[in-house]
Amino acid sequence: MPTSHDSSAEPVSAPDHKVVLGADRPLRLDCGVELGPFTVAYQTYGELNADRSNAIMICHALTGDHFVAGVHPVTGKPGWWHELVGPGCVLDTDRYFLICANVLGGCMGTTGPKEINAATGLPWGLGFPVITIGDMVQAQARLLDHLGIDQLFCVIGGSMGGMQVLEWAASYPERVFAAVPIATAARHSAQNIAFHEVGRQAIIADPDWCGGDYLLQEKRPHRGLAVARMAAHITYLSEAALHRKFGRNLQDRKAFTYGFDADFQVESYLRYQGSTFVERFDANSYLYITRAMDYFDLAAEHGGVLANAFRGTPTRFCIISFTSDWLFPTPESRAIVHALNAVAANVSFVELVSDKGHDAFLLDEPAFHATLSGFLDGAGYHRGLRRRGGP
Amino acid sequence: MPTSHDSSAEPVSAPDHKVVLGADRPLRLDCGVELGPFTVAYQTYGELNADRSNAIMICHALTGDHFVAGVHPVTGKPGWWHELVGPGCVLDTDRYFLICANVLGGCMGTTGPKEINAATGLPWGLGFPVITIGDMVQAQARLLDHLGIDQLFCVIGGSMGGMQVLEWAASYPERVFAAVPIATAARHSAQNIAFHEVGRQAIIADPDWCGGDYLLQEKRPHRGLAVARMAAHITYLSEAALHRKFGRNLQDRKAFTYGFDADFQVESYLRYQGSTFVERFDANSYLYITRAMDYFDLAAEHGGVLANAFRGTPTRFCIISFTSDWLFPTPESRAIVHALNAVAANVSFVELVSDKGHDAFLLDEPAFHATLSGFLDGAGYHRGLRRRGGP
Repeated sequence: MPTSHDSSAEPVSAPDHKVVLGADRPLRLDCGVELGPFTVAYQTYGELNADRSNAIMICHALTGDHFVAGVHPVTGKPGWWHELVGPGCVLDTDRYFLICANVLGGCMGTTGPKEINAATGLPWGLGFPVITIGDMVQAQARLLDHLGIDQLFCVIGGSMGGMQVLEWAASYPERVFAAVPIATAARHSAQNIAFHEVGRQAIIADPDWCGGDYLLQEKRPHRGLAVARMAAHITYLSEAALHRKFGRNLQDRKAFTYGFDADFQVESYLRYQGSTFVERFDANSYLYITRAMDYFDLAAEHGGVLANAFRGTPTRFCIISFTSDWLFPTPESRAIVHALNAVAANVSFVELVSDKGHDAFLLDEPAFHATLSGFLDGAGYHRGLRRRGGP
Repeated sequence: MPTSHDSSAEPVSAPDHKVVLGADRPLRLDCGVELGPFTVAYQTYGELNADRSNAIMICHALTGDHFVAGVHPVTGKPGWWHELVGPGCVLDTDRYFLICANVLGGCMGTTGPKEINAATGLPWGLGFPVITIGDMVQAQARLLDHLGIDQLFCVIGGSMGGMQVLEWAASYPERVFAAVPIATAARHSAQNIAFHEVGRQAIIADPDWCGGDYLLQEKRPHRGLAVARMAAHITYLSEAALHRKFGRNLQDRKAFTYGFDADFQVESYLRYQGSTFVERFDANSYLYITRAMDYFDLAAEHGGVLANAFRGTPTRFCIISFTSDWLFPTPESRAIVHALNAVAANVSFVELVSDKGHDAFLLDEPAFHATLSGFLDGAGYHRGLRRRGGP
């Protein structure tokens, strides 16, 4: 995994990059702390064109990372948006230069609570400053500077990724030609804060969390983190999807065992989700990233009026929601559309019919892919992008 | 707390009864185990009339108990349906004789995992047999035998209480003149099983659960049980109610603390719900009772056809659901209505508009109270009930 510095040249298409940024100019975080130098781990797919106009920043969700396509180095499974990425695909690597960075506070290489604090030589743990969606985007903007890209053709992301898209458009309007916030909201709802709090309390309740110092004590709060994941995972699906996938089917048995084993398939599935998650995710990162989402309230950052976040925006927006998403339901997207309309922004909006719940944006949803493809084609035409080798 | 036996006379209006039943004839549980003798703790309100025709069995929900009205002996707060119970109230103690028993597997006096197993002299713990909604109702029927009541005027209950109502009507049709299942379902959904499994895993993950033997080891899995309660509590409310009550309001502070304290009111509220719950509820009871709900599937008990559960039923039904209840959404009630219609049962159905979510049945909802009152009046007329001292 090559590590370079702000001033060095960066080979743009090699995978698994790491760059140290902010040594001269630390990030000024929303909490007031200055953070620097800091590391950003990122992946790229495709090639940056000559006029550096074809870059798409992909923003990942809470438990995602920068391994959008290809094989994930920890799980060995395909990246989270692998179906969308490749030559001729929706995110066409013959046409676009895709960038995805692990968020600040994450646990896949970017500076976060599990990394070493140079000042102490120990893992940050709870000494890591609480970060915000704005801080994550600020770090990504530094990466763009480093890559020598003035303007992104598009910023795209679902869920917490969509929050980053909105923050990008609000904070760096001139650097965002087009923006696609998917299955997201301009502020985290009370119910969603509540679910996050359950997850955090599950982690904190685990004695192996050790007040956040589990790395020093060579422990891992796997039980608490698994419970947090299980609770969250339910919110990513829809009741209809759970009914269709599992219903009340029993797991490898013909009758109830009258005990507390996983009699039902849905129990077995949830336990599996919990147990695999802890192998690839850091518990403290889970605390920090959920907190960043809780704190997100774009209107509050702009005098309480969401439209103010987008006044005079030159960006073309495509807002996408899914009918069965109850974590980020369509009214949250409509609120964004209303704000954009109030400032006469260039905005299209589609609510897609799906029974797959919030996770629809990660799944094989042809109408979603067609919507994305169509919007990118149209925006690409206006940006003067051509397919590599094409007309 | 007086304890009597099957054969003894029971003063019907004194509060806080306990009776030992099944010494001669144990309960035959669905899991195949025979349980007996067993204790039933129950409360009564009002007086049984001369022809013993005015008894209403109230069935409590998962974390409820038999303290429907009056002061709860542990919390010091009013009983869970206190607004409905009293002279001239919806559940008119001048007219009806109300009975509510703590369910089998519960932790407020009825035999359950925290009680002493006479065979060992130790708390049952996980040695307690897994019970079902059918077993709970069977135990209640034994209580009715003991009280000398052949037929209930009405069985009423919400949520898991509603499951018991359905089971009563299906298993003892001749003993149920009227039935009011509220905010319930004829089978537990995959999503609801999933939420229960999260709660159970939170408890089991707590080292103080001690494999279920925490009472012997003088510990309590309070952290795990609190997390379970927090997760469940979210499902009892609606997003609209959470937004209305808390929104993104901060708790006793004007700005984010950039930490993991309860910055938001909704966090503080949830933590309070968790911490108070553990003072009054037993963790193993939580496992057993959630399991009973998971296993509930009335159609499966009747050849896979729900209508078969009610074929030839003489009972008058009133089915009630709430628009914002996403734990037991209206389609679950409709499925019950369809089954009852298929056997030409006497059924009325109302979906009440409320933004209070599943908990609406526990809250001050005038339309709900009016519906209940109207149905009971009508059914009472058909049953020939008169108000005490009235016409």
